[in-house]
Amino acid sequence: MAGFAGVDAARGKMTSHSNDKTLFALTHRVQFSETDMAGVVHFANLFRWMEEVEHAFFRSLGLSIAMRHDGMEIGWPRISASCEYHAPARFEDEIELRLRITKLGQKSLNYEVDFLKGPDLIARGKIATVCCAITPNGMTPIPIPSPIRFKLAAASS
Amino acid sequence: MAGFAGVDAARGKMTSHSNDKTLFALTHRVQFSETDMAGVVHFANLFRWMEEVEHAFFRSLGLSIAMRHDGMEIGWPRISASCEYHAPARFEDEIELRLRITKLGQKSLNYEVDFLKGPDLIARGKIATVCCAITPNGMTPIPIPSPIRFKLAAASS
Amino acid sequence: MAGFAGVDAARGKMTSHSNDKTLFALTHRVQFSETDMAGVVHFANLFRWMEEVEHAFFRSLGLSIAMRHDGMEIGWPRISASCEYHAPARFEDEIELRLRITKLGQKSLNYEVDFLKGPDLIARGKIATVCCAITPNGMTPIPIPSPIRFKLAAASS
Amino acid sequence: MAGFAGVDAARGKMTSHSNDKTLFALTHRVQFSETDMAGVVHFANLFRWMEEVEHAFFRSLGLSIAMRHDGMEIGWPRISASCEYHAPARFEDEIELRLRITKLGQKSLNYEVDFLKGPDLIARGKIATVCCAITPNGMTPIPIPSPIRFKLAAASS
Repeated sequence: MAGFAGVDAARGKMTSHSNDKTLFALTHRVQFSETDMAGVVHFANLFRWMEEVEHAFFRSLGLSIAMRHDGMEIGWPRISASCEYHAPARFEDEIELRLRITKLGQKSLNYEVDFLKGPDLIARGKIATVCCAITPNGMTPIPIPSPIRFKLAAASS
Repeated sequence: MAGFAGVDAARGKMTSHSNDKTLFALTHRVQFSETDMAGVVHFANLFRWMEEVEHAFFRSLGLSIAMRHDGMEIGWPRISASCEYHAPARFEDEIELRLRITKLGQKSLNYEVDFLKGPDLIARGKIATVCCAITPNGMTPIPIPSPIRFKLAAASS
Repeated sequence: MAGFAGVDAARGKMTSHSNDKTLFALTHRVQFSETDMAGVVHFANLFRWMEEVEHAFFRSLGLSIAMRHDGMEIGWPRISASCEYHAPARFEDEIELRLRITKLGQKSLNYEVDFLKGPDLIARGKIATVCCAITPNGMTPIPIPSPIRFKLAAASS
Repeated sequence: MAGFAGVDAARGKMTSHSNDKTLFALTHRVQFSETDMAGVVHFANLFRWMEEVEHAFFRSLGLSIAMRHDGMEIGWPRISASCEYHAPARFEDEIELRLRITKLGQKSLNYEVDFLKGPDLIARGKIATVCCAITPNGMTPIPIPSPIRFKLAAASS
């Protein structure tokens, strides 16, 4: 990433579209309750942080992960999630979360998040998610509504 | 508590009605993800454990904390919660959670939970909760429905 | 509180010493993973938020809740914690956390946190904590080391 | 899995060595605090459940994930973790967690966990972990100590 060059948005930053493809970045301060008895951040918390930067990215586009469209409630359940851990994060560390979209499908959205501690990539995660209409009977995959798709496509182009 | 003398129910035990007033007890095994960098259970987790034994108690009565009655969805939001900590819990400890009802009001339910590690009382918590109808507009306090009140009263008499 | 008048510190703000005694304030954005199936923030999370503003307050004074002094590792285990809930917090709400010290004892530190959603006080919490030396054998209460006490006293005077 | 045929161990069960390779199974009751505003279990919690069955498996062998060997403190940091989600888990569901070892390396241990709701496979997760000596300076990968390796190998043979 060439550096932060964009609009400030809700504690996050829209980044310049350099060749590292980062669309949005956020700094997460490690909380005490996120550590475990090994003295480092518990590995499951990084999945929450991926979601934190995803949702802030949506907000930066004027969207919400929990929104209504054409009278339907829209949700984004996860199809898969993964993370590779290179180095631990510790209490009070400031971890930069950098999000990029890797696939914008008809009904699906895949993204990656880099976790940086200073200059070091300490972890990299991926989430695959699908756009759904939420009904009393459950969740049904639907094509990503145009206004949402348009903004996601514009951000990642 | 005189000891466990009652019916086994969903990993918990209905207890004899001895003079310590314990109505229901459950053993919670401390998970690694519940510890923090001080090497002990993070204090906020004990509030989750109080809820764990509360919900298991409801199940033992054939109730659920999230149930429907007369076409209404019933919920039990918290009015207040508190905990006093005497000694830490550690990874893999088996903590016995003993619940007793301290007040069964018209719309409210108050209870206490003792946390025991072997014979030692390591913490004691209290939760005050109110019975509500959940509607699209929010939650409205209602008198505890008779079938629920009846079972709670019978259990605590 | 008369309003924010002080130094920006790590996403928090040192406040003017108005008669509401707020020493430090922080805005917490509600995360999706903090909600529960009732559609609101799970009550136990507010105890984590109290700790979040406590630790940020310490950082604003150049301190850390997990620091060394005279070769000892210092910790602040909780003696008690409580919270009163007036209204729910929801996904994406920005909740302002306002901390004030209610007692600075020889070995203990008590504080309160107000939770505000816009102008509304949605919850108020209290935590009592004790300064301890952490040793391989456990935690021993000690007088709050002078450099720490000095800064806490100065902030709350 | 042919069915449970083995020794009861701390709420878990050693299973018969049928051709599905399940070594150990545990039932996790979904807690209210594990749900989110979509009304289902938050996806990050399944990573905690994988660890729950892993640690119970270790206990069933007379081991602990946090143990000492030859004066060293042993830990098992994660190299990677992933999960595929097929269907949601809901409040009060009883989810069966079935663990199998997929690789027992010189220093590493890989395993998979199936998540079953009744007969349905609702998710499948994988964790790769490495045996480390924990020192004041951090964690250093070491060959899995013989007594630990022996028990893991015996269980998975």
